[in-house]
Amino acid sequence: MPVFSASQLEPLASGIFRGAGAPADIADRVAHSLVVSNLMGHDSHGVLRIPSYLEAIEKGTCVPSARPTTQEETATTARIDGNWAFGQITAHYATEVAIDKAVGAGVAAVTFLRCNHIGRLGEYTEQAARGGMVAFMVGGTFNGGAVTPYGGAGRVMGTNPIAFGVPAGEEGPVVTDMATSVVAEGKLRVARAKHVPLAPGVIVDKDGNPSIDAEDYYAGGMLLPFGGHKGYGLSVVVDLLGRHLTGGDKLAGDEAVSFGNFMFVVKVDAFRPLAEFQQVVSGRLEQIKSVKKAPGFDEVLVPGEPERRTMAQRERDGITLPEDTVKDLSSLADRYGVAMPVAR
Amino acid sequence: MPVFSASQLEPLASGIFRGAGAPADIADRVAHSLVVSNLMGHDSHGVLRIPSYLEAIEKGTCVPSARPTTQEETATTARIDGNWAFGQITAHYATEVAIDKAVGAGVAAVTFLRCNHIGRLGEYTEQAARGGMVAFMVGGTFNGGAVTPYGGAGRVMGTNPIAFGVPAGEEGPVVTDMATSVVAEGKLRVARAKHVPLAPGVIVDKDGNPSIDAEDYYAGGMLLPFGGHKGYGLSVVVDLLGRHLTGGDKLAGDEAVSFGNFMFVVKVDAFRPLAEFQQVVSGRLEQIKSVKKAPGFDEVLVPGEPERRTMAQRERDGITLPEDTVKDLSSLADRYGVAMPVAR
Repeated sequence: MPVFSASQLEPLASGIFRGAGAPADIADRVAHSLVVSNLMGHDSHGVLRIPSYLEAIEKGTCVPSARPTTQEETATTARIDGNWAFGQITAHYATEVAIDKAVGAGVAAVTFLRCNHIGRLGEYTEQAARGGMVAFMVGGTFNGGAVTPYGGAGRVMGTNPIAFGVPAGEEGPVVTDMATSVVAEGKLRVARAKHVPLAPGVIVDKDGNPSIDAEDYYAGGMLLPFGGHKGYGLSVVVDLLGRHLTGGDKLAGDEAVSFGNFMFVVKVDAFRPLAEFQQVVSGRLEQIKSVKKAPGFDEVLVPGEPERRTMAQRERDGITLPEDTVKDLSSLADRYGVAMPVAR
Repeated sequence: MPVFSASQLEPLASGIFRGAGAPADIADRVAHSLVVSNLMGHDSHGVLRIPSYLEAIEKGTCVPSARPTTQEETATTARIDGNWAFGQITAHYATEVAIDKAVGAGVAAVTFLRCNHIGRLGEYTEQAARGGMVAFMVGGTFNGGAVTPYGGAGRVMGTNPIAFGVPAGEEGPVVTDMATSVVAEGKLRVARAKHVPLAPGVIVDKDGNPSIDAEDYYAGGMLLPFGGHKGYGLSVVVDLLGRHLTGGDKLAGDEAVSFGNFMFVVKVDAFRPLAEFQQVVSGRLEQIKSVKKAPGFDEVLVPGEPERRTMAQRERDGITLPEDTVKDLSSLADRYGVAMPVAR
């Protein structure tokens, strides 16, 4: 499969977004966000999303020149309207608003809506952690339910991700970012294409029976919450914050409202000096990593570390893209007169 | 096994605590907290804890007359010192402080330390939810590590619980409260006593090999985080907030520091009117509950509902206690001249 460097893909993506009407700063930020997802190994949130973003622009549900606005705010809270901008632009703005407020007030909470796909939540909890904050963020899904409640057999919930960010030392923040389903739907697509069975406990068929056949998902089956009733409990909380604390339900009927997001940040400095906190966190992470390894494991990793490892490797060796994605990008590059880079 | 009503157990527990030196209001609150845990079906956090609380009083690590104090505070944050009071007293106080601050400022975050066992975290997230708040709470464990990091084979982490509370309608708040290990250690004790195998994926033996034999845990094995690397990621976040954001590590060497807790609350009203929010949440819960049932399930429950069901049943039918617990309580009742109730 073709291999590109990040420095080839960023201008390509930005060029396409500019061609589709995005101002340079917006195009650059969205391009950077997608390529960083590829670098970190989260290809499902990388440049393969570009064709679907362009479709949203054509449909009018993504406005490439739009910018989010704060609808209502206090010293500690803000309700933000994405105005159908690229999701990454709104999420980045909302995170900045939260950080700014918490710098002054110690803590802050924000919601945002009408925002399109925002990419990896971990990008924003990391942004807040780099600003000296402990951050918590969820994204509730409105449409495209894929997950069944525990004990049920109905696609009534989204994959409802939950993310945290905690400042650490020079190694970089602790970042967790997880779907509250066992896996995201992308994994099923891969298993289906390769005709390989799924692990048990990932999906049920349309009647709620356990299945390891990805086809059963596409025949009306459902993803399961991770960790049984525990992941289901988390998913319900994400759902209620994302749909209802945001006020997203008031936009019901607006089919384009797909995501509602909530973020909470706490300034570490409100509790103890940041540098001291970062130092003790680093020490604790070393302690956790230094335990004896389980059979089959060479190493114990802490949250955020796998992504940093992959990033270092892909910055060196490049990002491998499926032929189909290259074909799609090539055709969009043509359309907007952007130079298509040559694979390494 | 003997059955008692809640109205028999509360005065018994309170009488014992008074006998051990607790003022009436403290004794009543701790007794109520324990008995409510029994009513809700969480017997591991119920009156069977009383003998260990009395041991802590004898050792001097629980001071029955102590009350928590706020060490440092701003309009939105507080660092609270439990002063070795009963944990329930400190957690209840911390929650009140958080609610009071968020009523004024919209959001608040608190930490507390030197607090003994606080019982179920869900008690406090429910308290906040009943005050119109969305609440998040974690309890990081310092001593008695029981859980291995994902990929490791070492008891380096606690069962590190995480809890949420979300206001709903008349049915009562949505409350999740979960250990980030697959189960708590109490379940292993039960399996060991009954000589029954564990489910797969609950523990590993001392070398990190999968095991279904509870004896392997007691021979140096470990509990696994729930949901593999996902629960592990959550456990690390709980650990860092509970140990380090609280400043608990600064008390290192003080063996009695077992728990460090962090809570944040957000006033629903800061985002939309509470009554409106409660109404849409109730509607959404109904929608989730109304999906088709999976084979083997009669009903889909939402978080907090199993506890309310059990409570209604046990308020009617009473609380069944193991003979050993009754014997322990009877001997403590004797010691403090409290009337031991007669089982129904």
